[in-house]
Amino acid sequence: MSDQDGCCLGIDVGGTKLSAALLSPRGEMRARTKLPLERTGPEEAAQQIADLIAQFERAAGDGRQELRGIGIAIPGVVFHDSGEVWAPNIPGWDRYPLHDRLRESTEAVLTIDSDRSAYVLGEQWCGAAKGTHNAVFLAVGTGIGAGILIDGRLCRGAGDIAGAVGWFALTPESRTDYARRGCFESEASGTAVGERAVRMIGTGRSTLITEMVDGDLTRVTAETVVEAARRDDSLARGVLEETVTYLAMGIANIVSILNPEIVVLGGGLMQAGDLLFDPLTAEFKKWAQPLAAEEVRVVLSALGEDAGLFGAGKLAWNVVETSRADAT
Amino acid sequence: MSDQDGCCLGIDVGGTKLSAALLSPRGEMRARTKLPLERTGPEEAAQQIADLIAQFERAAGDGRQELRGIGIAIPGVVFHDSGEVWAPNIPGWDRYPLHDRLRESTEAVLTIDSDRSAYVLGEQWCGAAKGTHNAVFLAVGTGIGAGILIDGRLCRGAGDIAGAVGWFALTPESRTDYARRGCFESEASGTAVGERAVRMIGTGRSTLITEMVDGDLTRVTAETVVEAARRDDSLARGVLEETVTYLAMGIANIVSILNPEIVVLGGGLMQAGDLLFDPLTAEFKKWAQPLAAEEVRVVLSALGEDAGLFGAGKLAWNVVETSRADAT
Repeated sequence: MSDQDGCCLGIDVGGTKLSAALLSPRGEMRARTKLPLERTGPEEAAQQIADLIAQFERAAGDGRQELRGIGIAIPGVVFHDSGEVWAPNIPGWDRYPLHDRLRESTEAVLTIDSDRSAYVLGEQWCGAAKGTHNAVFLAVGTGIGAGILIDGRLCRGAGDIAGAVGWFALTPESRTDYARRGCFESEASGTAVGERAVRMIGTGRSTLITEMVDGDLTRVTAETVVEAARRDDSLARGVLEETVTYLAMGIANIVSILNPEIVVLGGGLMQAGDLLFDPLTAEFKKWAQPLAAEEVRVVLSALGEDAGLFGAGKLAWNVVETSRADAT
Repeated sequence: MSDQDGCCLGIDVGGTKLSAALLSPRGEMRARTKLPLERTGPEEAAQQIADLIAQFERAAGDGRQELRGIGIAIPGVVFHDSGEVWAPNIPGWDRYPLHDRLRESTEAVLTIDSDRSAYVLGEQWCGAAKGTHNAVFLAVGTGIGAGILIDGRLCRGAGDIAGAVGWFALTPESRTDYARRGCFESEASGTAVGERAVRMIGTGRSTLITEMVDGDLTRVTAETVVEAARRDDSLARGVLEETVTYLAMGIANIVSILNPEIVVLGGGLMQAGDLLFDPLTAEFKKWAQPLAAEEVRVVLSALGEDAGLFGAGKLAWNVVETSRADAT
């Protein structure tokens, strides 16, 4: 990283942790840090981010590097007109004025976006989607959401909530939890995998899972199911097979409507790797528009947990570069 | 229309007919014409379009109006790199070099796009989506497809086939016809409505439909079903109810992933009007991301059969205006 180009600070705010790193214009990462998120209240979390920014601004000054901008990814929705954020897993961030709050403590270029926008930007910048212009990042963890790039631009929608694919309707039978968190998310998130296993165990079928959690079914998670499936447990394999069907349908719907070059799969559940990924890459083609299915690449995230951090840095660089272009 | 601004020629190529009109920069339409499409072969259809262009060029010259550009909407896919078109319902238009072919006979600015792109542009220019920047036109006729505007720009996808929402996967049960024309299209197109009625009649239920077609079930169409439903036929009403469920799911999926300001419904089946439209506007909200569902307007096409014609004209004006901006 040359001193001359300066660097941007990327901050990835998760539900329980805060990651930050300096990033050069070419995506070289340095001086990274990670700490537990202050969850006592909305102001406390914001103050912790302000402190982190101040600390990096000092460090950049000491190293004679110019801090060109700051990009922040949050696990929720950013309303770009007001700078307010909504993040269901952060106490009090319900239309919380994060942009105004941080503006008080720094003069640097500052931009905030959703984590899913950051994921797809990060993968396009330094990960699996390098060189593409039409890319989707499908995040499958406790929830399901997508970051979307169309012709190189982030697709945020009219109200900044595009990519809410966890709400895809994938079966005409309706179930009460669909109304709370969406059909796709109810059927295929990490949370759903655990729940599906518990429902199947409830029908009286025997499985390794029961002993793995010492008979306490409240402890069954997606990880338990994946682990049992690796040990060839037939109930666990059945759970993953049903999950694959819904994931394949969701991917297919993205491919048919957007005709992207690439769909990058990330999030906690995708760490199950080949168990889910291998069948998925075949099965989505059963559903998607055939030409679009043939052309698209479906791959696993190359950046893993760092996708949001790279993306946050790139968000900042994009704003810095736009300001520079406007000034000339 | 002032002579000074000139006009663009919009041509809407359907599977069986050809419409054309001159359009001012403000969307005033004049000198329109409509004729049956020449279907004897790919060259013959192209020649007919070339003749139509020549005729309008002469007429514009006689009227001392400058013909600034020509926009053509075709019922299929336009590959923008090559200018080739693929239109399954026009004999021989299978990667047919339409752009090169027409280039031989006119020097005007010439642009070709899919009919669904034209529909959404037309509605945004002069119809139901005026003033919006994030709009979707959902065409439900013999097939199902969508035209998509994101932040004011047409979304065509990496391979020019975005909007193939007829391939939305909407139920995990698979059926052989899904692989041929997509799940959504198999369940909710005009064609599907007729087929669903025939399947239900096959189970032995009595219905007005049987006598309406004199017992010849090959004559059952969506129109028959809609007409029977208007006469309170219970089988026909059941067919439309199931169709509404799938249409609502498809609309919901568009709303959740794109967060548009408006979804415009058009195409033959939507001429059933209130019978489908009224239940749809409520039912899609059961499925879609709640905030996006609250914000979006779901409306019927304002331009009806003319959406493609307006859109074709606007396609041409967009290119004319871009060329002018580049030249200054």
